[in-house]
Amino acid sequence: MERLVVNSSLQSYTIYMEEKSRFKIPKLLKKEYSSILIITDTNVAKLYSNDIVSSFPHDKVYVVVVDAGEQTKSLDTFYYLHTKAIEYGLDRESLIIALGGGVIGDLAGFVAATFMRGIDYVQMPTTILAHDSSVGGKVAINHEKGKNLIGSFYPPILVLYDTDTLKTLPAREVRSGFAEIIKEAMLADSDLFDRLMSVSLEGLTLEALNLFIYSGLQIKIKLVEADEKETGNRKFLNLGHTLGHALEAKLGYGVLTHGEAVAIGLLFMIYVSERELGASLPTETLIKWFKKNGYINPLTLDMVDELVEIILHDKKTVNQKIQMILLRNLAGPIIQPLEAKKLKSYLQGFIVDGISKR
Amino acid sequence: MERLVVNSSLQSYTIYMEEKSRFKIPKLLKKEYSSILIITDTNVAKLYSNDIVSSFPHDKVYVVVVDAGEQTKSLDTFYYLHTKAIEYGLDRESLIIALGGGVIGDLAGFVAATFMRGIDYVQMPTTILAHDSSVGGKVAINHEKGKNLIGSFYPPILVLYDTDTLKTLPAREVRSGFAEIIKEAMLADSDLFDRLMSVSLEGLTLEALNLFIYSGLQIKIKLVEADEKETGNRKFLNLGHTLGHALEAKLGYGVLTHGEAVAIGLLFMIYVSERELGASLPTETLIKWFKKNGYINPLTLDMVDELVEIILHDKKTVNQKIQMILLRNLAGPIIQPLEAKKLKSYLQGFIVDGISKR
Repeated sequence: MERLVVNSSLQSYTIYMEEKSRFKIPKLLKKEYSSILIITDTNVAKLYSNDIVSSFPHDKVYVVVVDAGEQTKSLDTFYYLHTKAIEYGLDRESLIIALGGGVIGDLAGFVAATFMRGIDYVQMPTTILAHDSSVGGKVAINHEKGKNLIGSFYPPILVLYDTDTLKTLPAREVRSGFAEIIKEAMLADSDLFDRLMSVSLEGLTLEALNLFIYSGLQIKIKLVEADEKETGNRKFLNLGHTLGHALEAKLGYGVLTHGEAVAIGLLFMIYVSERELGASLPTETLIKWFKKNGYINPLTLDMVDELVEIILHDKKTVNQKIQMILLRNLAGPIIQPLEAKKLKSYLQGFIVDGISKR
Repeated sequence: MERLVVNSSLQSYTIYMEEKSRFKIPKLLKKEYSSILIITDTNVAKLYSNDIVSSFPHDKVYVVVVDAGEQTKSLDTFYYLHTKAIEYGLDRESLIIALGGGVIGDLAGFVAATFMRGIDYVQMPTTILAHDSSVGGKVAINHEKGKNLIGSFYPPILVLYDTDTLKTLPAREVRSGFAEIIKEAMLADSDLFDRLMSVSLEGLTLEALNLFIYSGLQIKIKLVEADEKETGNRKFLNLGHTLGHALEAKLGYGVLTHGEAVAIGLLFMIYVSERELGASLPTETLIKWFKKNGYINPLTLDMVDELVEIILHDKKTVNQKIQMILLRNLAGPIIQPLEAKKLKSYLQGFIVDGISKR
């Protein structure tokens, strides 16, 4: 079993990566819980929730299934889950298990953070993308005016990555998850970046995939440990997310996957880094790789005004200045404050120059 | 200026008690904020919000006024306040000021705890009751199935008690606040309890009032510092709240004030302590004092089933056992697990014996 430890100011927790580890959760828990609520979605429930329920010896294990997709990270579902938790008699000694992708992790984690002022929870990511979101304690729901605007920093007690779950992932989910690994490589590991650019998503072995996820996790953990509350360098993890988040919000959550939006965001980040910092980056390699692997890009000029408006209300904006993460070079990130006006003209240039369409 | 310090694992913060201190908030803040949002209610806004707005030299100070009363501690108002915060362009470097009683403190504090995963906030209690709720970092909103079920532990950066605000309190608010001071005295200070029983609320001087609040605060701070996350002795502060919270929920928030409900809860706690622990407590003194000072008691037998049901879904219930705080003697609290059945029969006895009506 692969094992990584994350040190957090609230508590340290372990990430386990192993095939079929979903059958051994009770063994990995450090205490007994009065009851357990598994929160999962319509896609994942039918595949794995029974395995987990039956792995517990007692019968106070409940499952709540919510709709799959980003639109489920809403205030309504949040309240619904609280209602279910109360109805099932959960108390302060209960445990929540977040079984699913990033949406479930964020949503169930925020329910755990706020149920009776906070109870323990386990992250069980079932997508590649969630390797990223399940670590670091960021939990949230969306506000209609922006993504993840309502949330907390609230670390899980355990992250359990059953690599079985990756076998059944649709191609689009693999694509989505890879964008975050590419982001992590661009932030901190140019060798990893080269290795990523040398593979094709089709026909990737599970072994290779696990190795990429593991490498991405190491980068993420390092940044999270050094800056848990995102007052400094943890912000680097937002590379590609300024435009990425805005695109998701503008198009309606779920139209693009998170990773598809981040992929476009990464290209835009490169475009700005080249112009703002004179950076020299592997632009063509990345554009080609995205194209070859089926990433889509619906960005058009008429979206610009609204995208800038959304970005201005983003968590990453301080004093009306957009705190954009740029690269001086591969593995050399910096935070660059940008006026909205400048961002707008870069965005127009990015679309008109067609870099996003190549 | 009276000053008390609260040590919390997240940060230490100071409580200032002084007349007219609302005019000097900028001086008491340790950093500059990009913008400030004052959250207050219809009662308090007209009295004090302008003073605070004009105490800041810059113009990025916004005020949002919500309805006064417990029903405002709802999911809807919570979301509405997030919307206003986004619309006013608040960012991670912004500050929220909770100006009002316990409802505003809990609600605005929970908005601060969750806006962009947590920003700084100041508690400005304007009632006696809020001397209690403004300290200790408990913030929450109500679920329709129970009080404070959705919330966090999230300490303020500063508590500012402008004692001016106590001059305009209606008699019912004074009554409400005194119930919590009596609770604190019963938990930890029998001298304070005697002094409380020797005064009448009508005609109490502001000086005497301040001294009582100050004494109550000292007891509260001691318990909170020793057990910030309420895993142990902080639970003592729930003395009288098992029945108190349930009564509020049953009657509909706002029918009884919180303190009126706690007063009934304290009498019930005594009733159970006498029978469960053979405790000898100043029962008659307290009943007389409540009566003389106009506390009301609408408790009737037909409410019992529903009250027990509500208590079973309370945060204080673990493994279906109600964790009730009792007194072995004055200033001698313990946590006693009680079966629902037993609680129910005590509650019936309490009502039939008429102790609650004397």
